[in-house]
Amino acid sequence: MRERLARLVLMRLAEPGDPVMGRLAASCGPEAAVEQIRRGALDPGFARWFGSVHRGGAAGSDDGAGERLARVLAAWTARLETADPAADLAEGERTGARLVVPGDAEWPTQLDDLGDVRPHALWLHGEADLRFACIRSVAVVGSRAATPYGAHVAAEFGAGLSERGHGVVSGGAYGVDGAAHRGALAGGAPTVAVLACGADVTYPSAHHDLFAAVRGQGVLVSECPMGVRPTRPRFLVRNRLIAALARGTVVVEAAVRSGALNTAGHAVALNRVLAAVPGPVTSDTSVGCHRLIRQGAAICVTTPAEMAELVGAIGSELAPEPRGPVLPRDRLDPETRRVLEAVPARAGAGPATIAVDAGVDLETVLSCLGGLAAAGYVERTSRGWRLRPERPPGG
Amino acid sequence: MRERLARLVLMRLAEPGDPVMGRLAASCGPEAAVEQIRRGALDPGFARWFGSVHRGGAAGSDDGAGERLARVLAAWTARLETADPAADLAEGERTGARLVVPGDAEWPTQLDDLGDVRPHALWLHGEADLRFACIRSVAVVGSRAATPYGAHVAAEFGAGLSERGHGVVSGGAYGVDGAAHRGALAGGAPTVAVLACGADVTYPSAHHDLFAAVRGQGVLVSECPMGVRPTRPRFLVRNRLIAALARGTVVVEAAVRSGALNTAGHAVALNRVLAAVPGPVTSDTSVGCHRLIRQGAAICVTTPAEMAELVGAIGSELAPEPRGPVLPRDRLDPETRRVLEAVPARAGAGPATIAVDAGVDLETVLSCLGGLAAAGYVERTSRGWRLRPERPPGG
Repeated sequence: MRERLARLVLMRLAEPGDPVMGRLAASCGPEAAVEQIRRGALDPGFARWFGSVHRGGAAGSDDGAGERLARVLAAWTARLETADPAADLAEGERTGARLVVPGDAEWPTQLDDLGDVRPHALWLHGEADLRFACIRSVAVVGSRAATPYGAHVAAEFGAGLSERGHGVVSGGAYGVDGAAHRGALAGGAPTVAVLACGADVTYPSAHHDLFAAVRGQGVLVSECPMGVRPTRPRFLVRNRLIAALARGTVVVEAAVRSGALNTAGHAVALNRVLAAVPGPVTSDTSVGCHRLIRQGAAICVTTPAEMAELVGAIGSELAPEPRGPVLPRDRLDPETRRVLEAVPARAGAGPATIAVDAGVDLETVLSCLGGLAAAGYVERTSRGWRLRPERPPGG
Repeated sequence: MRERLARLVLMRLAEPGDPVMGRLAASCGPEAAVEQIRRGALDPGFARWFGSVHRGGAAGSDDGAGERLARVLAAWTARLETADPAADLAEGERTGARLVVPGDAEWPTQLDDLGDVRPHALWLHGEADLRFACIRSVAVVGSRAATPYGAHVAAEFGAGLSERGHGVVSGGAYGVDGAAHRGALAGGAPTVAVLACGADVTYPSAHHDLFAAVRGQGVLVSECPMGVRPTRPRFLVRNRLIAALARGTVVVEAAVRSGALNTAGHAVALNRVLAAVPGPVTSDTSVGCHRLIRQGAAICVTTPAEMAELVGAIGSELAPEPRGPVLPRDRLDPETRRVLEAVPARAGAGPATIAVDAGVDLETVLSCLGGLAAAGYVERTSRGWRLRPERPPGG
């Protein structure tokens, strides 16, 4: 509990994605980091690391690394009195959000690939289990100013990927993001909206109903403290989470200077699959997609099935057997495994029947079924839940 | 002259692209080939080659290679009486077409890459010099049933490539072909229409005015005898000439089963540059283009400048110095070189002035200027002809 409180403090002291704070927390742990900041004295080893990275600073500047670190520390310290982790926890509980930190069962371990810019913690709000939702997942991103073509394609990709059991990750914005989430909601798999503001802030406000639907069938994600408003830098920093959570990113529409290209860059840097959807060469909002394809940075995809095939085929530790479910059965927790064993192969069964067979309570069954569906083990049919026939990804 | 007449006979005896006839003509020369067919006795060495290639025939068949060759010979012989090369020449003269054979100054030597399926000769009809027109050239091909998007893009590519001094090669058909030719006519460089029928046949007949314009600013090309009607196989066989004449081929729109994909296949087989223009993923006529891009067979291009850069950059014998004109000055004939030396660098000059300076007649100047423009040496401005500033291809 003390570590969770410490992480909440760190979230208040530094902007999301601050690599210096990330390094400090990683090197000595969140509690010691808070303690050092409170004392106004950072660990000498950390100061040496900072000095080695920032030696010289701007060319010819007198500004030594020590002075710069002192200013960084002062900025953090100035925010100390605004940090009230107990109040943050209370606010989360009031709004229905939950805090997830590294080591928790719901923590998506692929975020560890972010190194020093890994978030300290995430606020989640919604029914879906974030880790399960992202095991098989694709980020669908693109222009806020999407054309009708882009919105149509985003919705098709959202729905098609969701129908194939892929979680759809996006940023909850206007245009491509919103269309992708809406398509995913129609498809049945959970959808994940990663916000650039507090998990309790509805931005854009016109997406009030969309966010409510995402909470119902997916999950809202934020690395910002509760109540924080979005700023331009926060949007850009947020994009790394979208790229890191998903196994692959597809850019649906992007003008030459689109934030979606920033997400695409993170996907490449993180060795995730990057794809782009072509469009009319006469359309400004497809110029970024075509450039990614021409550069060889992105693979050209034209259908959700092609995208599903791409993320299904990569040899990540999550997909040792690309033709079956992506999470090995023996890595499921015992309760989930019992539920899985109670799900019939052909004719579907209702959650209550499964609960009886598995010997667990109904609420647990529902939660396990959601995770199992996201992981590709089971599917919901009109006659209830059943095992998913094994088939190649995207097939 | 006897060789030209013999080639006209071969064109009448075999269908275009018949590799057996091509081999026979290549191995003993066109005159001897005609003589052997007339005598009904093919060279034993040729018969051995045929036997080695066709040994066995269909699995388990008794049909020996000797019998098959006899039937091939019989088919040729049956057409002997329809062959009247003198009448063909007279018909060419009457309609204004000219015969060009390997070894002629206007023969495009890149057709030699076709090996046994190289045409025996070409009927040309139009003002442009075929060899000059194709030195810097791009084939723009695509669906006959082009969408308005495809027709627009084809016209843009035709005009943009032509403005950059690239000859535009296509098939004279409805849809993408026609739009590409029309765009090229607006751009100023010669355009080349390769027909699947006789050079005197207007197919489709609605392209009467277009073909007349192509003859005025470019050239119609046919490997078929005069008067021959197009057939489906002739369209497919014709496609190899489009791919072989141009330095690169760009597919603008192509459904899954489009003839343009056949041309694309020839371009790949001939080691020519292959590119494709993306389009909406919702459009059936872009599916072939996207497939070529996804397979890695075609490079994704979105503008004429990108296509010009591609064909300018390949290391072919025609482009030893991709930043300058593609035909070295010392390979120009002496008259053309004299005209080139008379063209001013900055302020333009009219053809009459250039004729006086170069010491050649006006008609020669006009013909040389056309060739020099196609080869990238000179350009026509509102103030007359001038040297083209050296610049990177596509720049």
